[in-house]
Amino acid sequence: MSKADLENSTILAPRYGKDGLLTAVVQDTGSGEVLMVAHMNQQALDRTIQTGQSHFWSRSRQELWHKGATSGDTQSVEEIRIDCDQDAVLLKVSTANGRACHTGARSCFYRIVSSTTDGVVLELTDT
Amino acid sequence: MSKADLENSTILAPRYGKDGLLTAVVQDTGSGEVLMVAHMNQQALDRTIQTGQSHFWSRSRQELWHKGATSGDTQSVEEIRIDCDQDAVLLKVSTANGRACHTGARSCFYRIVSSTTDGVVLELTDT
Repeated sequence: MSKADLENSTILAPRYGKDGLLTAVVQDTGSGEVLMVAHMNQQALDRTIQTGQSHFWSRSRQELWHKGATSGDTQSVEEIRIDCDQDAVLLKVSTANGRACHTGARSCFYRIVSSTTDGVVLELTDT
Repeated sequence: MSKADLENSTILAPRYGKDGLLTAVVQDTGSGEVLMVAHMNQQALDRTIQTGQSHFWSRSRQELWHKGATSGDTQSVEEIRIDCDQDAVLLKVSTANGRACHTGARSCFYRIVSSTTDGVVLELTDT
């Protein structure tokens, strides 16, 4: 499919990378907070669409990952969007326990990059 | 740096992938809308921190990409966050022209994935 076709299509035609993966951004529907970034292969995307719960491909464990299956921090997917060139998806979710990060933080993005006279440091945000 | 060190560190230690890239999610500070997903090498991250404007690594053109340098759709970066394992960043930005996508859409995520009896289709959203 050409670039223009990908951009204009009303047919889902995910463009998986060489590693077979799309980038998935997870956003909290209520707060708008970006919770995490993960990856999806075709199976993970299909399972997410079928079940309404976030599924990813775990690159570290090399296996299908039903988010929250062990931690309880499942995500109900209220909307899935795909970007212009169909290589990234945005999941709008509500979380079962108000947190998405395995560290216990609400969002994986719990640190702000700050420049100081001593260089670049990270500040913790309230979570 | 160990996984726990990456998660707890207050020092920026980006974990670039084999391709030398981090995933970058761009979010509009005002609306909370997720605008785009792109990639950053070390140079792009450094330039973004130094200039306060979004810079990425264009995988298609294989060059440093100052977002908006040709289109005018520059992004003023108000905050940069990094995720738990330091392989993805979140840029909170304000856009010069209210749009982020090269198609002219406000966000690259202008299509919703919908399941119908005919299969999976994409619905255009209002932009």
